[in-house]
Amino acid sequence: MNSAPGTPQPSPREEFGRPLQGWRLKAYTIIFEADTRAGRNFDLALMVAVLLSLVLVMLESVASFREAHKAWLSWAEIAFTALFTVEYLLRLACVRHPWRYASSFFGVVDLLAVLPIYLAFFFPELYVLVDVRVLRLLRVFRILKLQGYIQAYISLGRALKASAKKILVFLSAVLMIVLIMGTIMYVVEGPEHGFTSIPVSVYWAITTVTTVGFGDITPKTDLGRAIASMMMLLGWGVLAVPTGIMTAEMAAQRLGDEQRPTTRTCHACLREGLQADSNYCRHCGAPLPEYQRD
Amino acid sequence: MNSAPGTPQPSPREEFGRPLQGWRLKAYTIIFEADTRAGRNFDLALMVAVLLSLVLVMLESVASFREAHKAWLSWAEIAFTALFTVEYLLRLACVRHPWRYASSFFGVVDLLAVLPIYLAFFFPELYVLVDVRVLRLLRVFRILKLQGYIQAYISLGRALKASAKKILVFLSAVLMIVLIMGTIMYVVEGPEHGFTSIPVSVYWAITTVTTVGFGDITPKTDLGRAIASMMMLLGWGVLAVPTGIMTAEMAAQRLGDEQRPTTRTCHACLREGLQADSNYCRHCGAPLPEYQRD
Amino acid sequence: MNSAPGTPQPSPREEFGRPLQGWRLKAYTIIFEADTRAGRNFDLALMVAVLLSLVLVMLESVASFREAHKAWLSWAEIAFTALFTVEYLLRLACVRHPWRYASSFFGVVDLLAVLPIYLAFFFPELYVLVDVRVLRLLRVFRILKLQGYIQAYISLGRALKASAKKILVFLSAVLMIVLIMGTIMYVVEGPEHGFTSIPVSVYWAITTVTTVGFGDITPKTDLGRAIASMMMLLGWGVLAVPTGIMTAEMAAQRLGDEQRPTTRTCHACLREGLQADSNYCRHCGAPLPEYQRD
Amino acid sequence: MNSAPGTPQPSPREEFGRPLQGWRLKAYTIIFEADTRAGRNFDLALMVAVLLSLVLVMLESVASFREAHKAWLSWAEIAFTALFTVEYLLRLACVRHPWRYASSFFGVVDLLAVLPIYLAFFFPELYVLVDVRVLRLLRVFRILKLQGYIQAYISLGRALKASAKKILVFLSAVLMIVLIMGTIMYVVEGPEHGFTSIPVSVYWAITTVTTVGFGDITPKTDLGRAIASMMMLLGWGVLAVPTGIMTAEMAAQRLGDEQRPTTRTCHACLREGLQADSNYCRHCGAPLPEYQRD
Repeated sequence: MNSAPGTPQPSPREEFGRPLQGWRLKAYTIIFEADTRAGRNFDLALMVAVLLSLVLVMLESVASFREAHKAWLSWAEIAFTALFTVEYLLRLACVRHPWRYASSFFGVVDLLAVLPIYLAFFFPELYVLVDVRVLRLLRVFRILKLQGYIQAYISLGRALKASAKKILVFLSAVLMIVLIMGTIMYVVEGPEHGFTSIPVSVYWAITTVTTVGFGDITPKTDLGRAIASMMMLLGWGVLAVPTGIMTAEMAAQRLGDEQRPTTRTCHACLREGLQADSNYCRHCGAPLPEYQRD
Repeated sequence: MNSAPGTPQPSPREEFGRPLQGWRLKAYTIIFEADTRAGRNFDLALMVAVLLSLVLVMLESVASFREAHKAWLSWAEIAFTALFTVEYLLRLACVRHPWRYASSFFGVVDLLAVLPIYLAFFFPELYVLVDVRVLRLLRVFRILKLQGYIQAYISLGRALKASAKKILVFLSAVLMIVLIMGTIMYVVEGPEHGFTSIPVSVYWAITTVTTVGFGDITPKTDLGRAIASMMMLLGWGVLAVPTGIMTAEMAAQRLGDEQRPTTRTCHACLREGLQADSNYCRHCGAPLPEYQRD
Repeated sequence: MNSAPGTPQPSPREEFGRPLQGWRLKAYTIIFEADTRAGRNFDLALMVAVLLSLVLVMLESVASFREAHKAWLSWAEIAFTALFTVEYLLRLACVRHPWRYASSFFGVVDLLAVLPIYLAFFFPELYVLVDVRVLRLLRVFRILKLQGYIQAYISLGRALKASAKKILVFLSAVLMIVLIMGTIMYVVEGPEHGFTSIPVSVYWAITTVTTVGFGDITPKTDLGRAIASMMMLLGWGVLAVPTGIMTAEMAAQRLGDEQRPTTRTCHACLREGLQADSNYCRHCGAPLPEYQRD
Repeated sequence: MNSAPGTPQPSPREEFGRPLQGWRLKAYTIIFEADTRAGRNFDLALMVAVLLSLVLVMLESVASFREAHKAWLSWAEIAFTALFTVEYLLRLACVRHPWRYASSFFGVVDLLAVLPIYLAFFFPELYVLVDVRVLRLLRVFRILKLQGYIQAYISLGRALKASAKKILVFLSAVLMIVLIMGTIMYVVEGPEHGFTSIPVSVYWAITTVTTVGFGDITPKTDLGRAIASMMMLLGWGVLAVPTGIMTAEMAAQRLGDEQRPTTRTCHACLREGLQADSNYCRHCGAPLPEYQRD
């Protein structure tokens, strides 16, 4: 019953091993933790730096802007690169098991946040990939921890995980529909109407069945339009399914959050999760005192 | 448990302080309240005036129409401006704490409903912003009060508020996906296919992932289309989440609205969850006192 | 509690008053009722005729086809017109209160199904409006009655009616958002980018917020695209609301349909809808026999 | 109450009759079953072959690729055709009732997977239809059986079946709306704006009401746009219905899957709805026998 808190997720903390004494302990507390004032400030500063660097990358991709501010842009770039590189090395330095950090999710993200810049010396077009550093913003939730955003985040993830199987099955079904429909449209409309090949037709079928409907490719023949209409209506009905799955999942959790009596515990056998209207423990049969709830 | 009625929302009334005697009391009752015939009529007249002025502004933006009716359009404008200005001053005059009203939501809206016209003397293009006065129509709900629309309105707001956190977390996740996807598409498709910069690509990614799909920018390369297809299918599945959140919320409330009596308890056998219209405990048959509910 | 059967909907039957003896009784049974073999056959024939006439109208609107088959098309037209006119007169003839039928929903539909053809003598372009006769197909549900489609139909309607208020409130909110957004976009993008007037901008805002996204009008400026992106994401989240409303409604009904014990009736006071686990009637306190369920 | 496991679906197995001794038994176990190592390997190999052949067909439809690799493409084609033909014959050979297999769902699919290739000798354009063989991938679920994907698949199907009636009724309603709307738009916009005929207008109405919005046809007149806006908003609200139906269905099942013990009843006080893991009645404290479930 996944409305129960379930096994506690491993907090990002544990992944990094226990810190040592002295300056490394200090550094660790500041860099990795967000419960001290210094730690929070560091994380906030980091968030700001990441955001600025992202804005920088985005502006840089705007031709007109790039031309106008060539000079200081490259300087800012170097500055951020240096900053993040130093930070990464510091992180490596102050954990007990550098490798365990380096191979952790955040470790990989931190590396990807600087790597492209160095690779860009050889393959300039890779430069923009530093946008991966947006993932670093996930750390922001650590600062918001106290406001229970984490909780919301976890419950969302739990719902997704719980319905993963159904959604996979569903996606596989959709893929088949889409492949067959695409093929049919390829036969019906043919290359002269933009359905130049089966892959393209499948791409069109996906845009149609997900109701995106770019309109770069559209059926022109009457038969094609009839089939497309069917696809939209049926596909539309079928695509109500994942919503249904997710919703059922979330509703169940939501309900679970409300059936809070699940913390009632038998005084005799310490069995937890007894219902509010029970007179006897359903596990050991011991009589229960009137249920206390405020 | 937000399926319970919860703490009563502050009614728009309270914001305006207690009225005084004499003509100000009369004016207050007419202008601010909608429970007397005069008050209702005033509000209805106001609604009509607001609607007319909105139609006016919209028609005025239609070039052909503007040319044809220049003459009386400007007169109507002046008339409405005068009307709303007078009304605003009257409101200020007949409340006990003018500032408290002026700084209240409706106070600000009422001001914004006339301000742009005066600013338009200096910045003509600001004129159309008087459309903000559409917000004044929110007052209409006061007239419909008796038909429980307010209730519906409140419960909608409650559901939104209750799931605000989850939706925020969700939006943040979507923004990251969209930024990364946009960057990838910028690398894959490049400026020659309309993805002129990362911001533009992100804009495209948003139109795609929200299934709006304008089609002003579309992937041309096979790889780009493959990535776009993935985005649509996955993004599609992921975007079932907010619906799930909202629905779970509303379902919980909906359920709550129906089962409110579930705390009624039999005095004899302490059986909980008896229905509001029961005369006898459905479990032990003991007669029940009249059900108390406020 | 609308999970209970609620007040019985007036069946189409009642609207037509009680029939007379002789041929009119026969005609009535055949034309209005679908429980005798003759009645079912008549209804089926009617459905086919309606469908054929619809196909006819649609084909007629295809220029190429119209040219090719001018001759017999007009004949078919006349035939169907005569048929439906006769039928309408028959219906009028064999009910006791012709006016009550004529003013009933189906009465109006039946009239609208022939009227346009006669009006078409004077205003030819009105001809296609005979498509209204598609509504006559609603009668098909009478034939399917036994298969409980009616039930599904009613429960759908009930859900829609039950959530009408919320949806109205919601629509009003959306209309305000859309009007304000449209105005802002009109200011930001201006006529040179296709936002030629506020009404047009509002039309665009609606296509965007409902995720239809035709793409005939799209923002070109960076600011416009930023605002549009916000609209899509937020609007997207907000538009999860009606789904939530409907779903909560249907889930509640669905649940209600399952709490079928609501047909259990007290032997003493004939109070209906007692719960399955009741030992005593919650209304009169009489002891209840063990609940029978198969 | 379809939240109960319900009657077991006929597993694909039963359709094929009981196998014989000797090599046919061996072949049967390998080809039709996936519980032995050999069977699993065979199915996996089959999946890979099917996928490869699909990729082949898709690549072949890409003009540039077809030109480049004409030579070995035709060879690969012949190879796959031979393979699947042999497999089909083997299947026919090792079942006791070949005809019962041939007329079963998978039997037909297996035939359709090879037939087009032979027909292609006479009608080359039919060739691509071999994509039907994508349906063969449904067999993959047999291999995943142990991971409960089948369960997810069944429950999805059950939800769809359970709400089939409502969705049918709903689709019929939508079709009427769409036909009427299409006709109106045909009258309002007319051929000069792309609404060349009623069928085309209906096609447009469907793309609009399902929020696909290709944009190949769009209203140009103000009246047309006003009607379209109404269609989107209302249609949008109405289209929340199927989602509601599906979700309610899945939620009910989801709930049911969790609460299956709700029929367990205490032998002493006949209290219903005891949980599966209870040792004592939570109401009267009486010890409970081991819970029976099949």
